[in-house]
Amino acid sequence: MANRMSDTQNAVVLLSGGLDSATVLAIAREQRFKVAALSFRYGQRHEQELNCAERLCQQAGISQHVILDIDLRKFGGSALTSDMPVPKHGDVREIGDKIPVTYVPARNTVFLSLALAWSEVLQASDLFIGVNALDYSGYPDCRPEYIAAFQQMANLATKGAVEGQLPIRIQTPLIDLTKAQIIRRGLQLGVDYGMTTSCYDPTAEGLACGGCDACLLRLKGFEENGLADPARYATKI
Amino acid sequence: MANRMSDTQNAVVLLSGGLDSATVLAIAREQRFKVAALSFRYGQRHEQELNCAERLCQQAGISQHVILDIDLRKFGGSALTSDMPVPKHGDVREIGDKIPVTYVPARNTVFLSLALAWSEVLQASDLFIGVNALDYSGYPDCRPEYIAAFQQMANLATKGAVEGQLPIRIQTPLIDLTKAQIIRRGLQLGVDYGMTTSCYDPTAEGLACGGCDACLLRLKGFEENGLADPARYATKI
Repeated sequence: MANRMSDTQNAVVLLSGGLDSATVLAIAREQRFKVAALSFRYGQRHEQELNCAERLCQQAGISQHVILDIDLRKFGGSALTSDMPVPKHGDVREIGDKIPVTYVPARNTVFLSLALAWSEVLQASDLFIGVNALDYSGYPDCRPEYIAAFQQMANLATKGAVEGQLPIRIQTPLIDLTKAQIIRRGLQLGVDYGMTTSCYDPTAEGLACGGCDACLLRLKGFEENGLADPARYATKI
Repeated sequence: MANRMSDTQNAVVLLSGGLDSATVLAIAREQRFKVAALSFRYGQRHEQELNCAERLCQQAGISQHVILDIDLRKFGGSALTSDMPVPKHGDVREIGDKIPVTYVPARNTVFLSLALAWSEVLQASDLFIGVNALDYSGYPDCRPEYIAAFQQMANLATKGAVEGQLPIRIQTPLIDLTKAQIIRRGLQLGVDYGMTTSCYDPTAEGLACGGCDACLLRLKGFEENGLADPARYATKI
């Protein structure tokens, strides 16, 4: 049986192309996993994050990168997968404490399930996801108790589970970190955040809007580190 | 809060167009749920079962039917989603007790996760799936303990779970039934099994092969009821 943390052990990393998942990718590589990266064209408002995911894989020399199409617009129910407008704010303090309309129903469950499917083919033991319970505490599928329940289910779901392979572990290295801490961790690992995009609603030219929740939280994270965000914004920040 | 079993309560039924899911659809309707049906074009070897799913919905007057594309061939790992041949047998007793190569990694988890996503948009409380632990006891994701773990995870995963809606229930009305019992139950409810297809590997003309595990188990089920299977077979059965 393979050990974890070895050069030969596979892991599947969910890679959106945003700040969080780029950091998670660097952490999985630091743990010396052989990384397969999984991204989704799920009906989100733009493809820019997928271009970022591809470039991050190229830079890291990751040859196993699958971009899977799932048209979650057939279900709708989110500002990211319908024509509902993305809320904009002038300041991070205006972000409410309710689950925002950018929440995509069961998205992490869908993404983790597909990562689980691929992990079974690859005999990967570890699935990495960049969920964060601090900055978006309202998202139900970012909470530790949800992740624990998914892991328990995963270990009953697969052929590997029945045949006694290494148990599946859902790794969430960012779950307790603030955005500022995530950025600090990523910079230590050499992440080039200029290659990532977080904006929910960029311009046609690919410039970040600077006003959606994702932009505001990201900007605050850089600011708390006394750094400028290398992302390109449509408005002067 | 809505009651279950009322005319206004929504349920999502996973509908492949096969014998089992057609029976589950009839059971969900008998329970007076307002049914939304979900099918997948996931890279399976043929589209015939999707045509069956569409016809079953038309017959039942179900207007909410989504066929979602997910290309599980990008992962492979199964005879149903790769060029691996589908095993054929002369007799049902030749089916082994190991997990067969027709097992699709984490398929039920992927399907249930997408049903969960849609259920959240529809505010559906019940997800129906035609898993069966008897005739395919080797499939890890057909076992009651797996279903219980999925349900537990689902009730931590969604906005509805956080906001105190009716808990999600995964309904598996066939889980303890033999194929013969399933057929008996379906016939009582008026299911037209001539409108269903179970074959893993039909001919180009849509005739069932009669030799794959799915055909053999289905034929045995009809035989045990003293009935002829109304499906059309390529070979004389």
